[in-house]
Amino acid sequence: MGIENTDKLIVNCLPLNESERQAFAKAARDVPQQFVGCEAHRGDMVWPVEVPDELKYRATAVIGNIPVSEVGRYARLEWLQTFSAGVDPYLRPGVLPRGVMVTSASGAYGQSVSEHMFAMMWALMRNINRYASNQRDRRWEDVGRALSPQGGIALIIGTGDIGSHFARLVQGVGMRTFGVRRHPEVPAEGMEKMYGFERLDALLPLADVVALAVPHSPQTHHLLDARRLAKLKDTAIVINAGRGDAVDADALAAALRENRIWGAGLDVTEPEPLPESSPLWSEPRCLITPHVAGGNHLESTGDRIIGIALNNVSRYAHHQEFINLACR
Amino acid sequence: MGIENTDKLIVNCLPLNESERQAFAKAARDVPQQFVGCEAHRGDMVWPVEVPDELKYRATAVIGNIPVSEVGRYARLEWLQTFSAGVDPYLRPGVLPRGVMVTSASGAYGQSVSEHMFAMMWALMRNINRYASNQRDRRWEDVGRALSPQGGIALIIGTGDIGSHFARLVQGVGMRTFGVRRHPEVPAEGMEKMYGFERLDALLPLADVVALAVPHSPQTHHLLDARRLAKLKDTAIVINAGRGDAVDADALAAALRENRIWGAGLDVTEPEPLPESSPLWSEPRCLITPHVAGGNHLESTGDRIIGIALNNVSRYAHHQEFINLACR
Repeated sequence: MGIENTDKLIVNCLPLNESERQAFAKAARDVPQQFVGCEAHRGDMVWPVEVPDELKYRATAVIGNIPVSEVGRYARLEWLQTFSAGVDPYLRPGVLPRGVMVTSASGAYGQSVSEHMFAMMWALMRNINRYASNQRDRRWEDVGRALSPQGGIALIIGTGDIGSHFARLVQGVGMRTFGVRRHPEVPAEGMEKMYGFERLDALLPLADVVALAVPHSPQTHHLLDARRLAKLKDTAIVINAGRGDAVDADALAAALRENRIWGAGLDVTEPEPLPESSPLWSEPRCLITPHVAGGNHLESTGDRIIGIALNNVSRYAHHQEFINLACR
Repeated sequence: MGIENTDKLIVNCLPLNESERQAFAKAARDVPQQFVGCEAHRGDMVWPVEVPDELKYRATAVIGNIPVSEVGRYARLEWLQTFSAGVDPYLRPGVLPRGVMVTSASGAYGQSVSEHMFAMMWALMRNINRYASNQRDRRWEDVGRALSPQGGIALIIGTGDIGSHFARLVQGVGMRTFGVRRHPEVPAEGMEKMYGFERLDALLPLADVVALAVPHSPQTHHLLDARRLAKLKDTAIVINAGRGDAVDADALAAALRENRIWGAGLDVTEPEPLPESSPLWSEPRCLITPHVAGGNHLESTGDRIIGIALNNVSRYAHHQEFINLACR
């Protein structure tokens, strides 16, 4: 970083209260900082990012998910800290000049997303979604058998922050945890065993719960297709909170319709919102939530995002290496 | 027991398979046993009990919840083993002659009921019931904030088998557990602290989750009334899987309508089924399930009932003290 600290400018879009602003000012040392966020938005599920035009030209650092279409206007930008865990749109060729560093809020969402997946799993096991639907008709009707996770096997595909959090949750209620990732030699907390993707087909018949927490990539498109869904037990539950296209929606709808699996919990779909015409909406054993596992649905998520940003502001001022630096 | 073993007769109504019948025959030693249950009913949510008339007069022991109105016809009865955890109807004065022993299946239902309560708690925390309701309208709509149990306090009223199981489940996801029971000096697994009912009013404002697993008694009628509901945080969740009348339904509906608590999960109501006219049906933050936490909804529950009965059959044959003997 060739610029003097006093020639830098951090544009901070976080919805901070007064004492948090002071903490950020202190962390920035002699780097000037403009606070453009408004505390009133703290409770919003997505934090707005609105930067006055004159600051766009002056900012050397921005904390906030600025629109990709506007990135070109930030002529002096050398660092972008996002609110989001994913930073893919900023890393596409041509979006940011070489040398601009992007740091994510990875790690802030693991608790919220994994807890939502856990809640979906339990709801399906105890038919809570079906009872909630019957409640609309004031219908008091036993829908039959329930499941317990006790002694079962959770197959967790994608073993990053979210998958690892989920693994610890299901271990706590008596499940065994098998993780699947591209590099199974890299350990992940909460996973009893780790496998590469080449073992996936052999593992599917053992799974009581298949939890998907994979990022979007060509490799994960329709990862769970008709052929693989056919390998599952008829009591298996599929949970997807990663990317919608990791599961073939038509194949899943068919498996549910024919009672070939117990149920599915989807917080992500393809496309989003899920079209009204999708047969998944009316499958009684399919639970759909509208991409609400993450965001700021949990208050602690916001605190974690702020903590990551604060840490990186201090590193920016002290010319230290960032945490959560995205690879380009 | 003055009767010779060979003069006794066990009428066994359990839905057993062949190898289980053999185990029961062995356990009974020289006591004759008639198997009147049919394995085909194993998957039923409530196991039927149908005893041929001629066996009613001869039975000295019955395994099964015989109708209270027919008890008088079992002239030689000295022992009744129920499928249920509760045996209140058989203990009412005049139902059974003095000296007849009643043993329950207490302990068989703890896992199923507590897991259902846990599923209801998670569903409410992540608004799963509201999303399941919106799904009926194919509505993709974020309903806002979610909660996490992490670091919260669960106030568990009734600390028997069910309350204790529930305590261990919530401890596993980071909650503290305060138990309330009539005799707080008696320890219960999973409870960090124990209090008597005289401390209930002081504990309510601290609770993130209030879980009721109390049996029916004059003391528990409207235990959670308007006055006590008013002491709860606006983020508190009430779960009732004990007796429906432990919560004042009108007061609960008012608290939910005015957003004075976060939500309520009710597997028991007063009366049952919940009347169509109840305002609780349409409260978006009230989750109603039709008394399905227990029964045989979990396969393992049936195995546990059979295990308790098998144990007691052996004790009957060997003139040993029963387990799960109900106090009269």
